Amino acid sequence: MVELYDTTLRDGSQGEGVAFSVEDKLLIIEALDRLGIHYIEGGYPGSNPKDVEFFKQAKVLKLQHAEVVPFGSTRYRSNIPSEDTNLLALLDTGARTVTIFGKSWKLHATDVLRVTPEDNLDIIESSVGFLTENGRQVIYDAEHFFDGFQDDSDYALQTLKAAARAGAKCLVLCDTNGGRLPLEIQEIVRAVMAEIDLPIGIHTHNDAGMAVANTILGVQAGASHVQGTFNSYGERCGNANLSSIIPNLKLKLGIDCVSDNQLKQLADVSRLISELANLPHDERQPYVGKSAFAHKGGMHIDAVKKNRLTFEHIDPEFVGNQQRILVSDQAGRSAIVKKIEKAYPNYDRNSPEIRALFNRMKEAENAGYQYEAAEASFELLTHKVFNSYQSFFDLLGFRVIIEKFKDHSMRSEATIKVKDPDGKVEHTAADGDGPVEALDIALRKALERFYPALQKVHLTDYKVRVLDTKAGTGAKVRVLIEASDGIEHWGTVGVSENIIQASWEALTDSLEYKLYKDRTKDCPDT
Amino acid sequence: MVELYDTTLRDGSQGEGVAFSVEDKLLIIEALDRLGIHYIEGGYPGSNPKDVEFFKQAKVLKLQHAEVVPFGSTRYRSNIPSEDTNLLALLDTGARTVTIFGKSWKLHATDVLRVTPEDNLDIIESSVGFLTENGRQVIYDAEHFFDGFQDDSDYALQTLKAAARAGAKCLVLCDTNGGRLPLEIQEIVRAVMAEIDLPIGIHTHNDAGMAVANTILGVQAGASHVQGTFNSYGERCGNANLSSIIPNLKLKLGIDCVSDNQLKQLADVSRLISELANLPHDERQPYVGKSAFAHKGGMHIDAVKKNRLTFEHIDPEFVGNQQRILVSDQAGRSAIVKKIEKAYPNYDRNSPEIRALFNRMKEAENAGYQYEAAEASFELLTHKVFNSYQSFFDLLGFRVIIEKFKDHSMRSEATIKVKDPDGKVEHTAADGDGPVEALDIALRKALERFYPALQKVHLTDYKVRVLDTKAGTGAKVRVLIEASDGIEHWGTVGVSENIIQASWEALTDSLEYKLYKDRTKDCPDT
Repeated sequence: MVELYDTTLRDGSQGEGVAFSVEDKLLIIEALDRLGIHYIEGGYPGSNPKDVEFFKQAKVLKLQHAEVVPFGSTRYRSNIPSEDTNLLALLDTGARTVTIFGKSWKLHATDVLRVTPEDNLDIIESSVGFLTENGRQVIYDAEHFFDGFQDDSDYALQTLKAAARAGAKCLVLCDTNGGRLPLEIQEIVRAVMAEIDLPIGIHTHNDAGMAVANTILGVQAGASHVQGTFNSYGERCGNANLSSIIPNLKLKLGIDCVSDNQLKQLADVSRLISELANLPHDERQPYVGKSAFAHKGGMHIDAVKKNRLTFEHIDPEFVGNQQRILVSDQAGRSAIVKKIEKAYPNYDRNSPEIRALFNRMKEAENAGYQYEAAEASFELLTHKVFNSYQSFFDLLGFRVIIEKFKDHSMRSEATIKVKDPDGKVEHTAADGDGPVEALDIALRKALERFYPALQKVHLTDYKVRVLDTKAGTGAKVRVLIEASDGIEHWGTVGVSENIIQASWEALTDSLEYKLYKDRTKDCPDT
Repeated sequence: MVELYDTTLRDGSQGEGVAFSVEDKLLIIEALDRLGIHYIEGGYPGSNPKDVEFFKQAKVLKLQHAEVVPFGSTRYRSNIPSEDTNLLALLDTGARTVTIFGKSWKLHATDVLRVTPEDNLDIIESSVGFLTENGRQVIYDAEHFFDGFQDDSDYALQTLKAAARAGAKCLVLCDTNGGRLPLEIQEIVRAVMAEIDLPIGIHTHNDAGMAVANTILGVQAGASHVQGTFNSYGERCGNANLSSIIPNLKLKLGIDCVSDNQLKQLADVSRLISELANLPHDERQPYVGKSAFAHKGGMHIDAVKKNRLTFEHIDPEFVGNQQRILVSDQAGRSAIVKKIEKAYPNYDRNSPEIRALFNRMKEAENAGYQYEAAEASFELLTHKVFNSYQSFFDLLGFRVIIEKFKDHSMRSEATIKVKDPDGKVEHTAADGDGPVEALDIALRKALERFYPALQKVHLTDYKVRVLDTKAGTGAKVRVLIEASDGIEHWGTVGVSENIIQASWEALTDSLEYKLYKDRTKDCPDT
């Protein structure tokens, strides 16, 4: 068995351009839990005050598999562990398991911490000991272990032994600089396993392009705990990519770290994390990228049609991905049948509605829509295609004016005119901090008269992505909105060259979804 | 010694979205030649008529190191090699060295070629033989070799021996489906080396995230010829990345495949190929990405300043890259000193200017600004704090109107009034596909009169992020803009509750940065 330890939210967020809000983090934790991850490193409460707040909120989550773990350092703010605010912050999270890192490389003890090698051993032992005495399970990250071992193997082993003596439950060997090669990892993990009788973990970085291979060779040499991030987020070239490691462990080495059904969620979870990070999903990523099972060359397409083994190393459905033939698509329609079977159970891939929905989706995707993080928009599209949708209002027009004055003050005003299904017209106006807010308020003013339930809906996230970067400010943009009524969350999407129009689409979808949801709940037969 | 064989132009162009013109190809060949690559696979003349033309033009190039090689298949258009148009197309290029691929996996002989295993051996031997008899050096690519070897090692070896008998000069073992693990590669390369007395090559794909590691283990097991692509372009998840493999061979294994000076061009060549492929450069790529030696965490920055070995596995200058200190709220005053030392060399962390800049930055970061991807805004802020900045124009006001009509058509109009340093006022108006474009155009209309150099600036990326998700559409947003004048790229940032204002800030910074840059270039003393 191998324990999976995700650090997307901590080490991953050290990556350039990677940042998660507290809301994002909670959604990611729920997704990682569904996937079967055992430990989720949520943040560094001793170094980041925002993470203190996060750990409070994370306690409320009901998780099936995962434990949320705080990360910190061995003591450095005080010589007395019980006075070190960084260690105290770990205790304060209330987490049962905590992770701390310490120095394995003499160079770091002397040049960075500026303590003697002996003092460093004491720092490790007393810090781990303080946490275990306070009833915590401690995962000990041996920073720069491989570099340290090559410099002075004896000293590096002593640092591990100090953590072991103090009661650490797992010792994680880190290739912090990411420069080591697979055979070095194999040799050193074996050497450690021969000396130390505790579970050994492996944590690697990708600076030589070897992070995934180094992790796999670490496991083949005996490591039973694996740390990584999704989509390889992380400082510099990133951490070892869990979305490659998990299927490699399960499908190549036969290690049952997640169930077959959990593995099928891999591609979706990876894409969700990209969306929440507001970064383009790397479509060439092994296993989870859109290109990973895409066939372009004529000979290859011919061959995979004869026998898919000829150019596919695994069945893409094992990881929730799909084969793509870059000319025509067959797999697409069956995926749709599967996707909507709850709402519309009795349709097969050849029924006209499925074909129509597939074509509408293809068109929309070509235009830049993306439904992975906008399932509410996809649901509305489905109902429209299946003719079970009835509009809630007609737009007669809107106008938004944004002004900036000489004194740098600003004003944003929206006016809007809508007609409800009974033909009644509302004409409203509102100011907002920005144009989208002004529009949002004016629209609600108009609709809440007819539909008071909308008062409960608030928008929880708003993202914009430029689709054709070369067009600059004239480019098409995609807006993703997340909304909530306090019970459910849902995502919607809009696309346009005009950011106000794209926002308007996502905004109206998010309100209409709420209304549709409520209507079908109240009268399940309509 | 290891021979480097680049197939960016052939196998790389099988990647989704990758395409090169003949002109692009010639430029890439010259760059690869300067870098010291030994063989450059230029195309597949038997399958692509454009490649026939390319090989004609490639002959004119004066290359120092590299040989341009055509790629083709063993015979399949005729049972007689001398009548197979695919083989004849190879001869027609006039190249001294040619590469052909054949089948090593029984499954492919029977299911794809639909010939007997014995016939397949004859196809290989007669095809290689035809080329060697015509005076060509033949590199033989054994497609699916590792999968074939695992299925039937004896048969796979027979295919190699057939090519060897016919006079091939090098046998390349291919992991065509990219699903093999490093230790399998090691074992199989060793087994082949024990049986066959010819130089062995290695060609891997990245479907399990292992391409670079598999190549390196192949070399450690005895392979002396390495095939790959730049930036890992290639079908599905891509080929083995030569921009990782070359420095791994040279700096980690001490194999002198290129000279020290050639290696220094690595980052530039990799970026040039991205530019010519018209694809965003992967900045997290090992060795050659902009993030590869970027430091963000405060502790890490502190440590690399004390000793760069602490968080860098190699000196970035070896591969023509450089260290970057990312300015973020985790970095302290010493990071700022280091960051600005080129422009303002004689300041230490306690000087009043550094303190003032640090405080301004802290305030800005608390307000939501982020300078990691907006170094131009940071530079402008620095010059403002150091009083070396003089504004280029005054805004007297702007107004943006976005209207949506009953027929769903839209209009976005901006008007703007600015005053230049001489007191001249411009008042302009423009339509745009969206409000930001309208504003951008109106602003340029006004400024280009005074500053014609702005015509060269175009915006290459535009990102928006909501900072306080709970506030919904009323939340603060951060806009990041990337701009280019065709030579340099720079990023700027703006923050506001109003997306138009945030865009305005980033937009004006990006134009002002260009003007500032040009002014300091023209008159270095001001």
